[in-house]
Amino acid sequence: MNPETWKTSITKIEPNKIVVRGYLLDQLMGNFSYCQLIYLLIKGELPTRNVGKILDAILVSCVDHGVSPPSCQNAMIAASTGAQLNAAIASGILAINEFHGGAIEKSMQFLEAAADMMNQEKLSPEEAAEQTVKRYLDNGQKIMGYGHRLHTEDPRTGKLYALAQEYGISGRYIQLSRAAKDAIKKLNGTDLPINVDGAIAAVLCELNIPSELANAFFIMARIPGLVAHIYEEKKRYQPMRPINFSLAEYDGPTEREI
Amino acid sequence: MNPETWKTSITKIEPNKIVVRGYLLDQLMGNFSYCQLIYLLIKGELPTRNVGKILDAILVSCVDHGVSPPSCQNAMIAASTGAQLNAAIASGILAINEFHGGAIEKSMQFLEAAADMMNQEKLSPEEAAEQTVKRYLDNGQKIMGYGHRLHTEDPRTGKLYALAQEYGISGRYIQLSRAAKDAIKKLNGTDLPINVDGAIAAVLCELNIPSELANAFFIMARIPGLVAHIYEEKKRYQPMRPINFSLAEYDGPTEREI
Amino acid sequence: MNPETWKTSITKIEPNKIVVRGYLLDQLMGNFSYCQLIYLLIKGELPTRNVGKILDAILVSCVDHGVSPPSCQNAMIAASTGAQLNAAIASGILAINEFHGGAIEKSMQFLEAAADMMNQEKLSPEEAAEQTVKRYLDNGQKIMGYGHRLHTEDPRTGKLYALAQEYGISGRYIQLSRAAKDAIKKLNGTDLPINVDGAIAAVLCELNIPSELANAFFIMARIPGLVAHIYEEKKRYQPMRPINFSLAEYDGPTEREI
Amino acid sequence: MNPETWKTSITKIEPNKIVVRGYLLDQLMGNFSYCQLIYLLIKGELPTRNVGKILDAILVSCVDHGVSPPSCQNAMIAASTGAQLNAAIASGILAINEFHGGAIEKSMQFLEAAADMMNQEKLSPEEAAEQTVKRYLDNGQKIMGYGHRLHTEDPRTGKLYALAQEYGISGRYIQLSRAAKDAIKKLNGTDLPINVDGAIAAVLCELNIPSELANAFFIMARIPGLVAHIYEEKKRYQPMRPINFSLAEYDGPTEREI
Repeated sequence: MNPETWKTSITKIEPNKIVVRGYLLDQLMGNFSYCQLIYLLIKGELPTRNVGKILDAILVSCVDHGVSPPSCQNAMIAASTGAQLNAAIASGILAINEFHGGAIEKSMQFLEAAADMMNQEKLSPEEAAEQTVKRYLDNGQKIMGYGHRLHTEDPRTGKLYALAQEYGISGRYIQLSRAAKDAIKKLNGTDLPINVDGAIAAVLCELNIPSELANAFFIMARIPGLVAHIYEEKKRYQPMRPINFSLAEYDGPTEREI
Repeated sequence: MNPETWKTSITKIEPNKIVVRGYLLDQLMGNFSYCQLIYLLIKGELPTRNVGKILDAILVSCVDHGVSPPSCQNAMIAASTGAQLNAAIASGILAINEFHGGAIEKSMQFLEAAADMMNQEKLSPEEAAEQTVKRYLDNGQKIMGYGHRLHTEDPRTGKLYALAQEYGISGRYIQLSRAAKDAIKKLNGTDLPINVDGAIAAVLCELNIPSELANAFFIMARIPGLVAHIYEEKKRYQPMRPINFSLAEYDGPTEREI
Repeated sequence: MNPETWKTSITKIEPNKIVVRGYLLDQLMGNFSYCQLIYLLIKGELPTRNVGKILDAILVSCVDHGVSPPSCQNAMIAASTGAQLNAAIASGILAINEFHGGAIEKSMQFLEAAADMMNQEKLSPEEAAEQTVKRYLDNGQKIMGYGHRLHTEDPRTGKLYALAQEYGISGRYIQLSRAAKDAIKKLNGTDLPINVDGAIAAVLCELNIPSELANAFFIMARIPGLVAHIYEEKKRYQPMRPINFSLAEYDGPTEREI
Repeated sequence: MNPETWKTSITKIEPNKIVVRGYLLDQLMGNFSYCQLIYLLIKGELPTRNVGKILDAILVSCVDHGVSPPSCQNAMIAASTGAQLNAAIASGILAINEFHGGAIEKSMQFLEAAADMMNQEKLSPEEAAEQTVKRYLDNGQKIMGYGHRLHTEDPRTGKLYALAQEYGISGRYIQLSRAAKDAIKKLNGTDLPINVDGAIAAVLCELNIPSELANAFFIMARIPGLVAHIYEEKKRYQPMRPINFSLAEYDGPTEREI
């Protein structure tokens, strides 16, 4: 046996056969959605249809946010210099970090800390949330997932939580995220909405996704948006125009019903 | 009016409101899949449910292919040096180019050339395919989308074409891709299967997706695979191990039924 | 013999020994400059001291150009989101393409075409330049290396050509680049200065550097600038500030003598 | 005054004028080396000629290390898929992280901790090194800069320290780095050489370079090597060959004298 042999548990490739986590890829096609495959690849097991649907809703919720996010700006700037599509996308992804997109991971860590306290000390969600918020505030740690630069009531949060309820996925983490909103108001005096990062964090916690992979969900979600902006830049504008992002005006379709 | 004002038709952001191509994002959540949003962002209009389903099948078909693809190797190597998740993903994406993933775009250009000839010269798909193959061969141009290093019959192709038929999406491009397979055999003497790149190319042509965005579909499809391999590398192995990709052995679940 | 063995001619590594292109690396240290090593690595032979000095001047000429270049903007935006240093640099490099930095390669191809014509048709530099300019204009091809968005007389060009003269490196390519400037004026009616891209192109041609590596010189040159801007962004500003690049004001040292 | 105005102290751009940290760029060309410009950009002041020379030696010391480093492998793999030069370089840079190249930063932090202790407690270098080593060992922290996978006596370290001595740059940090080597042997029982990361760290400390920029020096140093390997891959091999890095054989020039 070659001593350098090493193992991978993800995908087996043989002639005319691709087996992902034990399942034939061609049998998965048509029967399971892309979002269910994300779960299969990360967790090793096929999720229910409803898990696929809530992941779909998460990806849809972050699919684009106009030209102000740094990831969009990097992708557009790179495109404007003549970058190939993959390089422009990569450039955008390199701007998805702690302060842009990264709040999901931090928010999951907060909710996991609250859930641990709830378990270990046999507390109600309200008590656990309050004690965790207090500990964060005492330590001068920022609690991520609350408040938004622009949205005083993030429209994506309410919808995501309603869908989680409908799909039977809502549980202690969503309870904790709501209880923490109240605790922050009580202890810190700030009345902040749960933002989309906080809502996604709670749902990913319900699905038992590792927090260190949170950023991947934001990255996957945002790529269609990056691609649309890259394509618009290449089709609509001369290369190397100076792009002043604060002077963009929307000229797409007016608001319409689904 | 500020003369530097410029236009973007993709997304309008207002307080508590995110409007993508005219639709409220929170109303899209739960009603439309991520794959339908990809189409909306790129094409500007909401697709039918079946278009969403065939795009889902396309993304699933390329979601992973083990540790031999260059994109997977780059992502794993970067992860092994301690790269953050987004940087490891970006590193993988930078290896998705003309010779890895890029065949979809080239194959779409071939099929578009054949369709143009079919239209302009009032030919049957078989005639148009044969003449286009002949022109490519005469010019020494490589026809992409046929043959595979490993798979003599790509299991993903048959399934994708069957689903396209079922969803009512199959049309002239799939006809042309099949006719070209026969023409290559006749004119070049090589009996090559339609590979997954060629099959995806035909379906994307049916959906009228611009060929210069083909690579984006492969990139989006492959990210869950990259994430799984990055995560496995970080969890299972010491940093900076020398990774000999030809010595990998699969130790995941044995083949199982859906 | 293992049939998969393959060859590399660049560096041999043995315990306590690093041999680059045949030379012990520790013997190169202190005796040869970084710029001489660039040449050694690319061309396989050690250059003269003067070649090292002109390469040093080339790198210095492009070391920074403030906050308006796309590469700087991408690096700063990524840094502002919390990107690690290497990811912020990579993001900047991904914006160095055909329309930013890429003019050096295109300009080298133009000068090589002129030199080929000069050789084959036994022409003077003036004749060869004029005929090449004419061919480009007739074909609607853009001639790169002339004119600048901001500088009507690029201060770096004159200095680089003076140094090339002083170091004994000035030859036919610099002659051709000057002759083409006159030919463009005569044939196209536009009186454009040779910009720094055009000047670097001529010098790299004199050194027989392959044009497909031109971009590497711009990338290497610009990294110290990217690093300085990344560092300033991280030290001086809050993360995720909206950066309006057209509103930057210089507050560094006033002009001073060397 | 526009309230969004913000400041940058690095470079002032005016028509026909580029002023870096107060100096006209064209006056710097030919008078100061690229390595001196790195220092100017980062520190804001022009360094002595000797500082330029030791930085040149640092960059030369890391200019290439064959095909086993992850950064080289990523760059070659990306090149093999058809990546453009800048994307292949960026891919390589994304693999320069904590466990590859990153030891310089960690080693600087160790030496700075030792120097702080030396200052605050009025200790000799030997005493300060020993106490700092002890604290690291007690805390289970890894001390970076000692030992090498392959080199039992890193040839680059001795040369770098000799040059630092010759250039008048050798001081307390190099003393501390040597004293720590002895302390590690005494306290941990392991006799490890100072590796090139440790030696570079000590010199960068002597120059008062911020440790968070250490990685930039490794990145700048390694790019010529990446470029050479990318170029060799593109010129010498077919795209998408499976690259088994452990089967590379050197076929460059045999060892030769300078």
